[in-house]
Amino acid sequence: MIGTNDKIGYVKSKVRSVNDFPKKGIIFRDITTVLKEPEALKITVDYLCEQFKDVKIDYVAGIESRGFIVGMPMAYKLNAGFIPIRKPNKLPAPTYSQDYELEYGTDTIEIHKDAIFEGANVLIADDLLATGGTAEAACKLVKKAGGNVVGVAFLIELTELNGRKRLDGDRIVSMLKY
Amino acid sequence: MIGTNDKIGYVKSKVRSVNDFPKKGIIFRDITTVLKEPEALKITVDYLCEQFKDVKIDYVAGIESRGFIVGMPMAYKLNAGFIPIRKPNKLPAPTYSQDYELEYGTDTIEIHKDAIFEGANVLIADDLLATGGTAEAACKLVKKAGGNVVGVAFLIELTELNGRKRLDGDRIVSMLKY
Repeated sequence: MIGTNDKIGYVKSKVRSVNDFPKKGIIFRDITTVLKEPEALKITVDYLCEQFKDVKIDYVAGIESRGFIVGMPMAYKLNAGFIPIRKPNKLPAPTYSQDYELEYGTDTIEIHKDAIFEGANVLIADDLLATGGTAEAACKLVKKAGGNVVGVAFLIELTELNGRKRLDGDRIVSMLKY
Repeated sequence: MIGTNDKIGYVKSKVRSVNDFPKKGIIFRDITTVLKEPEALKITVDYLCEQFKDVKIDYVAGIESRGFIVGMPMAYKLNAGFIPIRKPNKLPAPTYSQDYELEYGTDTIEIHKDAIFEGANVLIADDLLATGGTAEAACKLVKKAGGNVVGVAFLIELTELNGRKRLDGDRIVSMLKY
């Protein structure tokens, strides 16, 4: 039996750190080197699902586009539905929109108005918790659509940026911390 | 026991057809209404995986961004790695690029040069087979990276556009045909 800490360490060892991407001074944590290893991929999905095993999850909502990668296998494993939260003008039916601030300017994400049923338990998934702006906007969207945010799951958290403080989900889970 | 045809019919009944999206005259087949139903999601992933059960799949490569939704749970279920094929300048390490033609102009997709091992069996996944241009470019990318394309899996195929003829994978599978 391999312990949980060993599993997390194994997955973390597969992350590739790329300097100066997407711009000078940023260390980019590349998860493609986790995803390409079947064992690391499986441990990651199973670990994130395990953290919510005591809650009934009706939907996993993934934030475009790496949140689709994290959220969709969780929805499959948890026997939940999957809801894409997308960039503007990608969803074909009527949507709710939410703006959020970037370092320079603002961005917008959208959810279908009829994506979820009233009072549904929704778990939000993304690859990275940095400042928390995107995830905060996603929480607002889920609530606008009538959902109850039961948690937010990230593969990676950049703890120094303290994005957690902006999120009021019951449970904020991240697997790998930097 | 529900038969395979009944399962396919059930999933097809969950697709929402949206007229004039993204532009006048197009009927958009919206799969978000499939994904939000846990049973339809599960049937879809299991069906697509089942079609390749006799082949060893080393990697599932998903084309950004709805191909991430289709491909990632397949990778999880098949105990394969997952490889994202992305739009330009999204992947942080050195990439191979491939252009492909759109109705007006061209577009480009990329794969990490070190994404897969030489001779690996790769299954490509996307949501929709239309003219086949994107999937054809994805096949070329996988080959550039040293992989062997063992098949291409789509949730939906628009059969009139005959995109199949542009693809030379061993096996082209689509679940729902229009």
